[in-house]
Amino acid sequence: METPQAAHRIAVDCMGGDMGPSEAVAAVAIALKEGLVGPQDHLVLVGNEEILRLLAREHRIRLSANVSFRHAPAIIAPDDTPMTAMKGKKDASMLVAVEMLKAGEVDAVVSTGNTKVLVGAGTIRLRAMEGAERPALAAIMPRREGHFVMLDVGANPEATPEHLVHNAVLGRIYAQSALGIADPRVGLLTVGTEEGKGGDRINRTHALLKAMGERIRYVGPVEGFDVFGNVCDVVVTDGFTGNIIIKTLEGMVYMVRDLVGPKVRYNPVYLAGGIAMFPLLRELKGHLKPERYGGAPLLGLNGLVMKAHGSSNRHGIASAIRLGREALEAGAGRRMREELAAANAVIAAHPAA
Amino acid sequence: METPQAAHRIAVDCMGGDMGPSEAVAAVAIALKEGLVGPQDHLVLVGNEEILRLLAREHRIRLSANVSFRHAPAIIAPDDTPMTAMKGKKDASMLVAVEMLKAGEVDAVVSTGNTKVLVGAGTIRLRAMEGAERPALAAIMPRREGHFVMLDVGANPEATPEHLVHNAVLGRIYAQSALGIADPRVGLLTVGTEEGKGGDRINRTHALLKAMGERIRYVGPVEGFDVFGNVCDVVVTDGFTGNIIIKTLEGMVYMVRDLVGPKVRYNPVYLAGGIAMFPLLRELKGHLKPERYGGAPLLGLNGLVMKAHGSSNRHGIASAIRLGREALEAGAGRRMREELAAANAVIAAHPAA
Repeated sequence: METPQAAHRIAVDCMGGDMGPSEAVAAVAIALKEGLVGPQDHLVLVGNEEILRLLAREHRIRLSANVSFRHAPAIIAPDDTPMTAMKGKKDASMLVAVEMLKAGEVDAVVSTGNTKVLVGAGTIRLRAMEGAERPALAAIMPRREGHFVMLDVGANPEATPEHLVHNAVLGRIYAQSALGIADPRVGLLTVGTEEGKGGDRINRTHALLKAMGERIRYVGPVEGFDVFGNVCDVVVTDGFTGNIIIKTLEGMVYMVRDLVGPKVRYNPVYLAGGIAMFPLLRELKGHLKPERYGGAPLLGLNGLVMKAHGSSNRHGIASAIRLGREALEAGAGRRMREELAAANAVIAAHPAA
Repeated sequence: METPQAAHRIAVDCMGGDMGPSEAVAAVAIALKEGLVGPQDHLVLVGNEEILRLLAREHRIRLSANVSFRHAPAIIAPDDTPMTAMKGKKDASMLVAVEMLKAGEVDAVVSTGNTKVLVGAGTIRLRAMEGAERPALAAIMPRREGHFVMLDVGANPEATPEHLVHNAVLGRIYAQSALGIADPRVGLLTVGTEEGKGGDRINRTHALLKAMGERIRYVGPVEGFDVFGNVCDVVVTDGFTGNIIIKTLEGMVYMVRDLVGPKVRYNPVYLAGGIAMFPLLRELKGHLKPERYGGAPLLGLNGLVMKAHGSSNRHGIASAIRLGREALEAGAGRRMREELAAANAVIAAHPAA
């Protein structure tokens, strides 16, 4: 006997990515073909409907009850701000998708578009979920063994201790659905693991997380080099630090690629060496799985918003659809509200000194 | 006609490094032999004098007017804190070296020892220089072309806008002596380059740096991926963010090494490929120059304290001696006091709203 699955409705903003709508539509085709969404689920392709219908035909998407279109002609540009976009581009695919989420027409939105506008519009239109005050962007990153969740990587640069505790709660529940870890270990990112280091904000956050006891598997403060070890599964930080970390890491990866790449290409000995090592690089890439975890949810809003990297290809976007669907399937939103309420009770019982 | 050089006196804490006193003494031999210090300069080897004299003989250090010894039998352990060390280990080589600096017996200290204790003891015993409030640890990091200075990487995790402006002034003068850049470009690390992003602290710092006009070549806010480009020569941040950045970057480098290294060693095809590419790796290492910039000064104190990485070999420690000597030669301390006074005048003229 099979339990009937709940139907999850996901709007895919198809116009926002650097690679154009074709990759987004291809991602929908992958999601349907590979069963990343269930047979009861429904995907709405949001964007220029004429173009999207053409692309859907090209990618052999069967126009069934699983797929529909929503016309939204405008496109958010890289230099748009939340304010310029929400004032002048109400008919942009990203904003139409967010409005569908607000209206309850869908349960989640996936977008590759401008992060600032997505965070701003998501926060303003959807508002924080009950018990939270600010959303947090949660990235999945590789470590020696497996992956970990880091949040916030850019939604709320001025996080209070209470916000950081909320991030811990949200990140823990997300790690359960995204990484399949039953009881994820939570660490607080700071500059030294002795108590009393890192300043008042970290100390108060540390005290509150400890006070949560069994409700959260808090392993204590962690340092920058701990995150790639097997110390914790959820790294809690503020959106200022987290954003700078992921951009600096990305910058270093690109720097090494730029320094090494041309030399390998133009030197036959290096090229031969590189070709010999290709399976290793592929294995390394398989280990790091950049495309398996191509989406970062904006957690703590009334409705699930998944941000995929602007440069995502079809696999990255498909992975964001999958991660969003898994969070919906796990009832993450309801569980986050419950756990935020419990955390807020602990916070209220431990007022700041 | 030669101008007589000023004599610079540098105390080398020989007992603190992971690799033991032999590397520190070898570093002194290199500094003398390769002319990293001038003929008028003087190096004091601080530590267990009996051992140091033996090692000096082994490394063929000529016992001239350029070299002397200071006996200090105790050693700071990795788990010492500033308090345990300053209470119980007054005769530790690191603390004796700091006291020599305080007493005016030397002009700079080089140490590979426990960073926390060095920052703590340096701050408490030497005190902030006139015009500064807190010291900042300044690291030199590689980018696509050349290197840049980032500060603070861990001395002051709770920096105010005023501290960040001081960091800009200190980092600029250090970049002049360490990187040989006449008018270094200064950037403020944040999460978005539009004005108004990054919170009140960043906004006020940005306004103050702009108000300094010609005194500092401020290029504006920079993001995490900008630092490895050719955008600015001095990256200003707080000791919380900066410390987490360098530790995360270091952690990622070690992770990739751990993932790739064993596979290359135990697979003959990969090993052959690796050997073919060895000159490239050497060239890359030559470009990144990890040992050319092996020291990070603790800037803004009464006296120059150079921290070398705990795992530094002789070349890393020798580089810290050289960087310290270059800063002394450039009159960095006097110039920092002058520029801090000018910066504080700008701060006073622009009170917080």
